[in-house]
Amino acid sequence: MALARENDLLLILAKDGKRFIVRLERGQLLHTHRGIIAHDDLIGAPLGQVRQTHLGYPYVALRPSIHDLVMDIKRASQIVYPKEAGYILLKLNVGPGSRVVEGGTGSGALTMALAHAVRPDGRVYTYESREDMCRLAAKNLANVGLADVVEIKQRDIAAGFDERDADAVFLDVRTPWLYLDQAREALSDGGFFGAIVPTANQVSELIDVLGRKEFMDIEVCEILLRSYKPVPTRLRPTDRMVAHTGYLVFARKAESVGEVFPEGADET
Amino acid sequence: MALARENDLLLILAKDGKRFIVRLERGQLLHTHRGIIAHDDLIGAPLGQVRQTHLGYPYVALRPSIHDLVMDIKRASQIVYPKEAGYILLKLNVGPGSRVVEGGTGSGALTMALAHAVRPDGRVYTYESREDMCRLAAKNLANVGLADVVEIKQRDIAAGFDERDADAVFLDVRTPWLYLDQAREALSDGGFFGAIVPTANQVSELIDVLGRKEFMDIEVCEILLRSYKPVPTRLRPTDRMVAHTGYLVFARKAESVGEVFPEGADET
Amino acid sequence: MALARENDLLLILAKDGKRFIVRLERGQLLHTHRGIIAHDDLIGAPLGQVRQTHLGYPYVALRPSIHDLVMDIKRASQIVYPKEAGYILLKLNVGPGSRVVEGGTGSGALTMALAHAVRPDGRVYTYESREDMCRLAAKNLANVGLADVVEIKQRDIAAGFDERDADAVFLDVRTPWLYLDQAREALSDGGFFGAIVPTANQVSELIDVLGRKEFMDIEVCEILLRSYKPVPTRLRPTDRMVAHTGYLVFARKAESVGEVFPEGADET
Amino acid sequence: MALARENDLLLILAKDGKRFIVRLERGQLLHTHRGIIAHDDLIGAPLGQVRQTHLGYPYVALRPSIHDLVMDIKRASQIVYPKEAGYILLKLNVGPGSRVVEGGTGSGALTMALAHAVRPDGRVYTYESREDMCRLAAKNLANVGLADVVEIKQRDIAAGFDERDADAVFLDVRTPWLYLDQAREALSDGGFFGAIVPTANQVSELIDVLGRKEFMDIEVCEILLRSYKPVPTRLRPTDRMVAHTGYLVFARKAESVGEVFPEGADET
Repeated sequence: MALARENDLLLILAKDGKRFIVRLERGQLLHTHRGIIAHDDLIGAPLGQVRQTHLGYPYVALRPSIHDLVMDIKRASQIVYPKEAGYILLKLNVGPGSRVVEGGTGSGALTMALAHAVRPDGRVYTYESREDMCRLAAKNLANVGLADVVEIKQRDIAAGFDERDADAVFLDVRTPWLYLDQAREALSDGGFFGAIVPTANQVSELIDVLGRKEFMDIEVCEILLRSYKPVPTRLRPTDRMVAHTGYLVFARKAESVGEVFPEGADET
Repeated sequence: MALARENDLLLILAKDGKRFIVRLERGQLLHTHRGIIAHDDLIGAPLGQVRQTHLGYPYVALRPSIHDLVMDIKRASQIVYPKEAGYILLKLNVGPGSRVVEGGTGSGALTMALAHAVRPDGRVYTYESREDMCRLAAKNLANVGLADVVEIKQRDIAAGFDERDADAVFLDVRTPWLYLDQAREALSDGGFFGAIVPTANQVSELIDVLGRKEFMDIEVCEILLRSYKPVPTRLRPTDRMVAHTGYLVFARKAESVGEVFPEGADET
Repeated sequence: MALARENDLLLILAKDGKRFIVRLERGQLLHTHRGIIAHDDLIGAPLGQVRQTHLGYPYVALRPSIHDLVMDIKRASQIVYPKEAGYILLKLNVGPGSRVVEGGTGSGALTMALAHAVRPDGRVYTYESREDMCRLAAKNLANVGLADVVEIKQRDIAAGFDERDADAVFLDVRTPWLYLDQAREALSDGGFFGAIVPTANQVSELIDVLGRKEFMDIEVCEILLRSYKPVPTRLRPTDRMVAHTGYLVFARKAESVGEVFPEGADET
Repeated sequence: MALARENDLLLILAKDGKRFIVRLERGQLLHTHRGIIAHDDLIGAPLGQVRQTHLGYPYVALRPSIHDLVMDIKRASQIVYPKEAGYILLKLNVGPGSRVVEGGTGSGALTMALAHAVRPDGRVYTYESREDMCRLAAKNLANVGLADVVEIKQRDIAAGFDERDADAVFLDVRTPWLYLDQAREALSDGGFFGAIVPTANQVSELIDVLGRKEFMDIEVCEILLRSYKPVPTRLRPTDRMVAHTGYLVFARKAESVGEVFPEGADET
């Protein structure tokens, strides 16, 4: 039987669908809208079973998924959602042991998904120019126990990345096309490049410069998540959905491909 | 400089967008529609640089991503695409060290993505009743060097899974609702459950039985990938797209939640 | 020069994007959040020119489109949106002179689009069991000057429709499959049938009964509208969108097609 | 009972889903892949009933919808699909009696939908520079009996439109932003403007010039049609779909709105 232990990160699901993520600490209390949950009561309790707040309102404690953690993040900016993060992992070939450079940490949502995928031996080097965002991301990563595989560097990426031979570079900044030399310098030969930008104009600019800077196998896409109301007899999509977070752009670092692999050559 | 070595798995990108995945072996030849590439010429050559077939046609050799490998798989069935696989990884919390049970190996596409994510210490236990599919999946996994983290078992899952306390169970079978007891038995308390089904009728059936079998936090969704032609001055979506591979269903194993967490309670 | 005249229906567009639809009447005032607009000032004024409220806030008066009118409707229920209404018109072949029967008037949104398309010689016969909805729809149609081509009948459609040889029948009710005999009776030979239902379960039920009741050329679809923020240098989809209003189902009334045109025969 | 008459336009639906549109003429034969259908046999026959080719293969004859006619058009270019055409009708307020100017006739698909909606008293004035396209569109419109409400003019629209006070102008040309003065000249005060362009770059260019040329209420959107396989027990989206035909842009002609209604002001 799986038991909750001190210092565990838990997902608390209340009956009304409210979700809380907490780290169990002796003596702490979780105040919900329907009563208090004492951490001490949970420590040693089995996971996945119905329990009650001090007001008798039912809840269940479970281990959170990386999806839950990313969605729960304290955010001070638009985050990269799990629907994109999952695809980014596969496109950038990020897995156990990968060394990944990220430009634009933001709140650390993608950083968290990358860190989860590369641990324990890989490493995420993430750059962010704003001090407040660095602090927020550091706190978010520490909260979920992933701080040890991430190095947060407060720095303007125009000055370049410290890393060399990185497996992948991902940019979540406003003008990614300005930092492609820096990305190339950090990437291994043939390394994986990715970026997310909110507007079509930025996509055009980025893929133009990617082509001129000897990147190849350029792909542009969007990932749309359509959720359904999970009612067996009345199955239907939710009324509203997130229609846009960003366009994803992927490419590979190459050499001297400009003349022989011209614009559009790898269109399908 | 990253050099191609004997036994490396390589992605060959021809100028016209054609893609080949090969494992470098001394003496072998890759026959393309535009000339021959001798493996011996590639062994020791730098990655990411333009080379030529014996007919002078340009190509570039790169390390493939797990995305490339999944898309290249020899398939005898509808596969789980990377757009779904990436999201499944995050929802099922699959990462380094995870122990995952898969019912319905098929061609092994999702198996491959799972194996890539859990290696080297995790394990994927995958069940498939058809012998020919088991052989195909085994070959596909061996081709990409992931066979050692996967156990393929030719078995009807009605007989149950061998594993206990698994972190996650994923079912890609026609009637997943028939195997929820088996899934519960294999899962850890609070463990992650997922399934993919092509029709809305199957979704209704599955979420109905999930609710009655003490699963909770049920989510149903679809992932849509919209690709763009990567031409800077003429940015536009591709004319046609994959409109449907399957509905994804996720849930958590719980206990005695039926009466207190009734149908639809965790709708957002 | 096009001038606004007494009794004209006008769309008032304020600078901040707020939209009002009014019928010009001598002595009336439109109270906006940014000042008052006297109808008298607009009567005789040219359309499409910047004017100001009594507080000096700019606005423009234009003739509303049927799209504007449908979106502005007073609603007491989920309405059929213009994205669906436009497609319904083409699929049901509704145009000038058409005689259309509608089951489930609701707030009258689709009724309005149908009336606009069939006027002045066609006719929309619309049935609604709830008296309050009949009154609301009547008011909505009168407001936009389309009441004269519509007959609203407060009646349970189980009792049948009065019309015969109708060009098209459209049902926007919870259980459309219960009224297919009534629809057949009202339709001309080969006539056009359509329905909208919110859930996948209803689609299954409806197309099953349609097939058994000698309808053919069955089509099921959804129409998705994706809007963009119209900023030239930062073109991007809006953050959120309507993800679902309903599934559209279309079919043709036929005779004795059951045995020779079995289920699924006209799948593409 | 509705009977097929000489000169009727009919939709022939074969059992396997094949569709043919024919005009009934004495003595003519329709050669299908499964046998011959003599027009003479259909003249006087009831619509919506199963009949057989000379080889005994079942088919049904029905009146085609405007949707059927548009989809069946002989095309020498990308057409505007019904999913867009229906929405265009509502956004441009096109209905019985409307006078609409179209720049870029192409194969005449949208022309056909417009003509169907404005007949018998309205009029579609459509401009096309290529003689071959003019001939094709004329033939397509004559085939479906809508030629009498359409004037096709072979002309470069840079030279301007002949019409004044038109209710709506729609442009389906490569560089619509070059013809906005011409569109303004043809439009009534406050008139409806629409355009379709395939790329995001064209959208940016067009909405930029629209804003500078005193158009307002600018809207940009896409319409996506998702079809389902109509099988009651296995309801699911079709595997592939049309992912893109074009971006739709709508606006209203106004005066002197530039300074007070700046870019983006009417974003929602």
